[in-house]
Amino acid sequence: MHACILSIGDELVLGQTVDTNSAHLSRRLAEYGISTLYHQTVADDRPAIAKAIDRACRDAPLVIISGGLGPTDDDLTRFALADAIGMATDHPDRTVELQLDQPSIDQMQSRYKSLGRPMPKRNTVQAMKPLGATMIENTCGTAPGLRATIHDALVFITPGVPREMFTMYDRDIEPVIRELLLDHEPRVIRTSKINTFGTGESNVAEMLGDLMARHRNPTVGTTVAKGYVSVRVRSESNDLEHAQQELEKTIALVEAKLGSIVFSHNDVSLQAATLDILQAQQKTIATAESCTGGLLGKMLTDVPGSSAAYLGGWVTYTNDMKTAELAVNPELIKTHGAVSEPVALAMADAARTRTNAHFALAITGIAGPDGGTEDKPVGTVYIALAQHQQPTTAKRHQFIGDRETIRDRAAKTALNTLRFQLLPPHNSPA
Amino acid sequence: MHACILSIGDELVLGQTVDTNSAHLSRRLAEYGISTLYHQTVADDRPAIAKAIDRACRDAPLVIISGGLGPTDDDLTRFALADAIGMATDHPDRTVELQLDQPSIDQMQSRYKSLGRPMPKRNTVQAMKPLGATMIENTCGTAPGLRATIHDALVFITPGVPREMFTMYDRDIEPVIRELLLDHEPRVIRTSKINTFGTGESNVAEMLGDLMARHRNPTVGTTVAKGYVSVRVRSESNDLEHAQQELEKTIALVEAKLGSIVFSHNDVSLQAATLDILQAQQKTIATAESCTGGLLGKMLTDVPGSSAAYLGGWVTYTNDMKTAELAVNPELIKTHGAVSEPVALAMADAARTRTNAHFALAITGIAGPDGGTEDKPVGTVYIALAQHQQPTTAKRHQFIGDRETIRDRAAKTALNTLRFQLLPPHNSPA
Repeated sequence: MHACILSIGDELVLGQTVDTNSAHLSRRLAEYGISTLYHQTVADDRPAIAKAIDRACRDAPLVIISGGLGPTDDDLTRFALADAIGMATDHPDRTVELQLDQPSIDQMQSRYKSLGRPMPKRNTVQAMKPLGATMIENTCGTAPGLRATIHDALVFITPGVPREMFTMYDRDIEPVIRELLLDHEPRVIRTSKINTFGTGESNVAEMLGDLMARHRNPTVGTTVAKGYVSVRVRSESNDLEHAQQELEKTIALVEAKLGSIVFSHNDVSLQAATLDILQAQQKTIATAESCTGGLLGKMLTDVPGSSAAYLGGWVTYTNDMKTAELAVNPELIKTHGAVSEPVALAMADAARTRTNAHFALAITGIAGPDGGTEDKPVGTVYIALAQHQQPTTAKRHQFIGDRETIRDRAAKTALNTLRFQLLPPHNSPA
Repeated sequence: MHACILSIGDELVLGQTVDTNSAHLSRRLAEYGISTLYHQTVADDRPAIAKAIDRACRDAPLVIISGGLGPTDDDLTRFALADAIGMATDHPDRTVELQLDQPSIDQMQSRYKSLGRPMPKRNTVQAMKPLGATMIENTCGTAPGLRATIHDALVFITPGVPREMFTMYDRDIEPVIRELLLDHEPRVIRTSKINTFGTGESNVAEMLGDLMARHRNPTVGTTVAKGYVSVRVRSESNDLEHAQQELEKTIALVEAKLGSIVFSHNDVSLQAATLDILQAQQKTIATAESCTGGLLGKMLTDVPGSSAAYLGGWVTYTNDMKTAELAVNPELIKTHGAVSEPVALAMADAARTRTNAHFALAITGIAGPDGGTEDKPVGTVYIALAQHQQPTTAKRHQFIGDRETIRDRAAKTALNTLRFQLLPPHNSPA
């Protein structure tokens, strides 16, 4: 089965916002073997949207649209849907009437009530649906979605806010698509992602060898995103069980080739994977951050329940704070600089002993764009790991990229340093 | 003048990669008053690409395409271009011949030589151009671009690698477009974005009133992203100076209507805007975070040079750390809970006095998904602001959404609380 994906908004066509919804939807549809014929981005222009909906409904049996359901005058998708329904049904007005949906207005009002605010009058339009369309509840925002059938194609419209779109897709759209698929030839695709950190894509590809051969089934490919190299496995078959078995066999082969650089499968983050091992070993961690400014703490606390293992930490952004709060000897800073191995070691030691955690991670570096020297260019970062009854160690790293990238890689490398420490000895990296 | 933008690649249509090239190109074209009719993403499918090129060339006088020029079997854009040229010229084969371009092969070979590697034979295809097309030199990668005229439309094809595309656009495509524009009626678009936080989109729209009238020029629209409501202004004219003047007039009107909820223009973040005021007033800030786990510190240190105003802070994730490091009285926690006004006040006070900063922000809340009670449901967050020689204040907030959203909004609300405090008194919010 094919689908067309439309995203609506001037901000997209003007290039002020990058459309990430379409890629997300394509990925989700691919899980069920539905391939996307095209993505199209259309401006906030009622006739243009109506025309794009009409064309997409002729091109594919499934059309998913995001954006243009807001409360303001430039939100025109619901009106364009009415026009597309009108055109498809040869309505003399070339559009259909909009009606108020009582359950939707009730939900919106109770949502505003829970926020302790009156619902602005102009939000009422968000409870309007074209004749022949139905509403899709929005459980994490104001605007309900819409669903209609045009030229035998099933059309779903969600808000453009990614979180609202994702939630609506998971909760109300995917189940309908799954049912729709039962009427078609069963062709099953099972996919999985194996995540690694700390080794470049070419090296990962080298390690995978002929597992990456182009016409293999399951296929094995690599993708790089945010410093992670992920190995995508995609197994295709007419039989669900067979697809799953082949998927698992290939995953096992990939894991055997990659060893300890694999930190998780699918959407489990590096921080969640690391915290899992910490918690299983009933150990705790504290942090002391300079150039990352709290990012490492933020990442650890991204994970619900992280308080079982993460005690907290310090953001010692100035030298004074390093000295006052983590007792870093000012002489050390004077002699070696704040970005140095001795300072990283001292920060990690103090964070561990002050909190009595099993481990403490410290990060000090030059995130840029300024502050680099010949000796310590931008991207130089020292990461130290203190441990209960073990010597504290530090390592110098050189990251490349802009400030955001350097900070991100520094925090992830700190997590990975801890993860390797927690692995049984024979699993440590070469 | 209008343009169509196509991006080619299975990885885009499968959603494995997000297309950022189209947004970049739209932004660049808008600088010259060229509006993008649509973005379309097409799979690595030769007939589909050829059809999309043909249609785009009928729809607009300028077509920019990226992707599908690589050396592997799934790179088909040059062949599809040959097909589109063949169809448009009624060639009996419905395609045209490909020819080797000698200067291109020479450049590619010397590029590989400078890398100290032989050129793989399969790269030769990258020096092939359809009859009637010309090559565009690639100064930072292997694959040259292509240029052709189809149905009177000017077509440019660049590699999909963003850096190669950007460079080729700047160096070889934009100059041609500028010349092309001289033959057309000059029509200029100037855009700007005015960013607000803390007020919902409907209320912002209400405040803007008839500035948002649909056929006004400059147009005024709103977009919501990551908790911010941004007001987009787009001024269109035949005269550059006039477009700029009208843009600025409308910006002034928008600002007058919105007052202090406006924190910046264009791409200046809330943290950068807040730090700007702090630095202008030569004041400093420290942080004490519980549920945000370092996110507020991370946001402040996103901004290069933030060390001039941000001293650092604490992540007191456990109650023990609140007591040990910020001297929060355990009785307070016992009586009121860690998520309470007295604890927020005590955290802010300690962070300020320990660092001797002018201000300290403290955040304690329930980010979820667990831990909520009837009294303090998930999303309950107390934000306290301590100030030099002023009473410390705290406010209870109720955020909605998942853990990530609640934490994000809490940190941004803390920044905004500080920003309002720094504004001259008559600018404070109602």
